[in-house]
Amino acid sequence: MKLYDYPGAPSPRKVRLYVAEKGLTIPTVEVDLRAQAQQAPEFLAKNPGGTVPVLELDDGTFLTETLAICRYLEGVHPEPNLMGSNPKEAALVLMWHDIVTLEGYLALNEALRNGHPAFKGRALIGPKSYEQIPALAERGKQRAAAFFDRLDAHLSAQRYLATDRFSYADIVCYVTVEFAPRATRSNPIEGRPALERWRDEIAARPAIAAAG
Amino acid sequence: MKLYDYPGAPSPRKVRLYVAEKGLTIPTVEVDLRAQAQQAPEFLAKNPGGTVPVLELDDGTFLTETLAICRYLEGVHPEPNLMGSNPKEAALVLMWHDIVTLEGYLALNEALRNGHPAFKGRALIGPKSYEQIPALAERGKQRAAAFFDRLDAHLSAQRYLATDRFSYADIVCYVTVEFAPRATRSNPIEGRPALERWRDEIAARPAIAAAG
Repeated sequence: MKLYDYPGAPSPRKVRLYVAEKGLTIPTVEVDLRAQAQQAPEFLAKNPGGTVPVLELDDGTFLTETLAICRYLEGVHPEPNLMGSNPKEAALVLMWHDIVTLEGYLALNEALRNGHPAFKGRALIGPKSYEQIPALAERGKQRAAAFFDRLDAHLSAQRYLATDRFSYADIVCYVTVEFAPRATRSNPIEGRPALERWRDEIAARPAIAAAG
Repeated sequence: MKLYDYPGAPSPRKVRLYVAEKGLTIPTVEVDLRAQAQQAPEFLAKNPGGTVPVLELDDGTFLTETLAICRYLEGVHPEPNLMGSNPKEAALVLMWHDIVTLEGYLALNEALRNGHPAFKGRALIGPKSYEQIPALAERGKQRAAAFFDRLDAHLSAQRYLATDRFSYADIVCYVTVEFAPRATRSNPIEGRPALERWRDEIAARPAIAAAG
């Protein structure tokens, strides 16, 4: 097994934190996103989507998409359980994964990639060139703010995001919250006390603190 | 158990086809999207995201997000297996679910909701009003076309989308392909023979044909 990774990017960070919480060690290969190595033909042969992370299995299969990679690892290393131990828990983990991804993470990506000069001509992740849409950067910020409000309200009634214990949904959400200042130049925990309480608790977990 | 549904919308259709393939019968409540019933306070109390489908469990839990709803049903009715019967299959189903959703389904929604006069002021699903961004409608069409090219190439080498048998990923992709003509005014199967072969095969499945 081999993980294609890049230290500065938020999606592979979700996998790294998940691997740390599982107590696993997986050999990694760095794909230099600054040098556009994810667009090189030899990498696109592994993942036509041109994204990291990618998990190469021992049988030569390339798994792409963060959720799928973690789902594979959950299957082969079931303990500690991070994706739910009964149908309701498993559904709640996926539900919050999707809410965080669609309402929060994608909105932050819209804000960053359509607003920052470094992403000119690369407004979307992937091998195709797309021009920035400034109105989408603005909408991304608004949408992310609405998502963080929803999150703050939710976390004022629940210790963890999806179930009554720590799960993969917390990892995905934590990386999203940590990504926000870079994407929108404002910190979502300001003025959102429940979100701040939760963020501090996740950050203090030994595996998260060690993996960074 | 009770499913909040709307016959004309693509997301709840994914659940309906999944339920049909499982051979289940679940009582449904129609949420009239044309009358904006998904934005009414009594519905937002069930799902603050303001979307259908929603599955109400017997313990009063409301599950939102299509994938989460189907994952719950897979857990309580494991056969026939539609989400993978080993870690690699389960990962591949989620991987293709996410590729279809992020590259295809969201692109089609961008094209439809930012381009069609019926969605003026409602460019995003959910309770908040967002103005249309015409450049995003155009980008959505281009992005959807690139996705359908990728799909056609993939299906020229594989009978089914994710694994060597029919899965939930095929359902999600089928609804996405069927949604495309309405969203972009062009049919993705034209000029994509592998996609057409696959579409015809999925459409002819008895449960799919019966559920519509």
